[in-house]
Amino acid sequence: MSRRIRTGWWVVLWLVVVVAPAAAAGAADPLPSWRDGPARRAILRFVAAVTRPGSPDFVPRAERIATFDNDGTLMAEKPEYFQLYFIIERIRELAPQHPEWKEQPPFATVLADDGDDLTGLSRADLERLVLASSANLSEKEYVASIERFLDHARNPELGLPFPKTVYKPMLELLDFLRARGFRIFVCSAAGPEMIRGFSEKTYGVPRENVIGSDMQMRYELDGAMPVLMREPNFTPPTNDRGGKPINIDRVVGRSPILAFGNSDGDIEMLEFAAYSGRPHLALLLRHDDAEREFAYDEGAEQALALAPDRGWIVVSMRESFRRVFATPPPRQREAR
Amino acid sequence: MSRRIRTGWWVVLWLVVVVAPAAAAGAADPLPSWRDGPARRAILRFVAAVTRPGSPDFVPRAERIATFDNDGTLMAEKPEYFQLYFIIERIRELAPQHPEWKEQPPFATVLADDGDDLTGLSRADLERLVLASSANLSEKEYVASIERFLDHARNPELGLPFPKTVYKPMLELLDFLRARGFRIFVCSAAGPEMIRGFSEKTYGVPRENVIGSDMQMRYELDGAMPVLMREPNFTPPTNDRGGKPINIDRVVGRSPILAFGNSDGDIEMLEFAAYSGRPHLALLLRHDDAEREFAYDEGAEQALALAPDRGWIVVSMRESFRRVFATPPPRQREAR
Repeated sequence: MSRRIRTGWWVVLWLVVVVAPAAAAGAADPLPSWRDGPARRAILRFVAAVTRPGSPDFVPRAERIATFDNDGTLMAEKPEYFQLYFIIERIRELAPQHPEWKEQPPFATVLADDGDDLTGLSRADLERLVLASSANLSEKEYVASIERFLDHARNPELGLPFPKTVYKPMLELLDFLRARGFRIFVCSAAGPEMIRGFSEKTYGVPRENVIGSDMQMRYELDGAMPVLMREPNFTPPTNDRGGKPINIDRVVGRSPILAFGNSDGDIEMLEFAAYSGRPHLALLLRHDDAEREFAYDEGAEQALALAPDRGWIVVSMRESFRRVFATPPPRQREAR
Repeated sequence: MSRRIRTGWWVVLWLVVVVAPAAAAGAADPLPSWRDGPARRAILRFVAAVTRPGSPDFVPRAERIATFDNDGTLMAEKPEYFQLYFIIERIRELAPQHPEWKEQPPFATVLADDGDDLTGLSRADLERLVLASSANLSEKEYVASIERFLDHARNPELGLPFPKTVYKPMLELLDFLRARGFRIFVCSAAGPEMIRGFSEKTYGVPRENVIGSDMQMRYELDGAMPVLMREPNFTPPTNDRGGKPINIDRVVGRSPILAFGNSDGDIEMLEFAAYSGRPHLALLLRHDDAEREFAYDEGAEQALALAPDRGWIVVSMRESFRRVFATPPPRQREAR
């Protein structure tokens, strides 16, 4: 091979390995499932401002924290939170060991033939169901029961396994932020174990970046092998409303500069985006897409009312999402 | 420039950029401050086994969690925990606002001229001092007071700023584990804010990888600006003994395969290294080096007694550490 040809190869290699990917990264649309509009523009403008060296709004990499609510923000939460289907399944699994439940509310309601409709249950009822299904067992057994559930359960309206009911535009946003040096935390009122069951595979978010409502635990030894027993009490504060900023501060030791929620439970987390004094962006996903997902403002009335005053960007699913799910739900495929 | 010379340059560049660092990484000693011996060999053997693809002991990257106690494991804890010097300083700072403290134990003891000797205080006294110095103020004020303290305070025996009292061999171990895909968590009975004040700069450990004993907090708004108020109570469980595995599981969602401690407070964390069922390594640092650091077994008697039975490696500081501190303490420099 002549020297001339060998030099030529080095140049080709240089172009392929160094130049081409850099050019492609600059040119490719990082948010292809987002429609052009105020939400997409606000996100692109904010990320450019905080990551451009020399920008007056530049934020050092270590402080680029983004927090996302889970249910209704990263994934569908209707007709019910996916955690509720887990609780129903667990109660039915455990029922043979509790014959008294057949007569006892709220267990009787869940065990009835039409037990999927739990709209009549009070908050206290729900807490009793959570504790009966998820406490007084070991953490290992609990995590295993979540894995079994996630392996087969589906959202009854969308017909998809729960980890497939996450929003494609939000997955793109997580990737985009990570590529710009952000660290992503998922911050949910649910137990963290439920979301850790799929957070790494689905979101690319390591388990330790999932913050939730923790059950109290007791440490025991079985011979030399540790056992963590789940006690029937929550560790305060539960990870909702004002509990979210508190737990974010405790776990992360920093506050987010980007926060994304969808309901009144996220109000304080969205407020918390202002805490660091850095440039920040708070976003509120609005469910207004009955055709492709669900349309409801219930549970988000306060947040929607506060948004203009607080400078939060309201993201209309109907207008901002070019597509909603990576895998179209069966009912939508049939409707075509 | 001739083609021949330009081709030559490419080859040089290739050697410098690609080949040389790889060769150096293979050849360089990753633990130069460790003396050859059972501890160093156990570490090298374990890390090789769990990271070599195809090894029967291979552990996937996501599960390579290492947890380290702080005081006495990563840094000197004598003559007293560095947190205690912070508490004393805070109590003296706050004393003008509390004239009644002059007559009131345990405050009177701290405010006396010889107030650095707190050996006579009970655990309840210490808790009162912690709460008086670190509660009923905002989290932002608290973090700022820690920064002020770390800026000037020194270990009174070693004569070094506290972040300089960390052990050089342990810093090398953290780097070595990270280079092999481990994620490091510091797990201390102290408040996490104290260690977060230097963890990134000194250990290369991000703030969110520091687990400690959390104070309860209250969320408030000052206009639209959130305030986190520290309440005079701990969030259970405090991060000591059986609280360590519980908090590691809550925060990380995984158990360590390598755990390193130095006292009875670390017993359950060392036991917890066995929890995942993966190959694991638990190490206990023994302070037996009066000349270069301190010699004491107090507070570690139970752990040292359990070590042989549990398979924990006892690491003698005197025998295993080639050098102890990156910056030799002034008293040792004088002694030369």
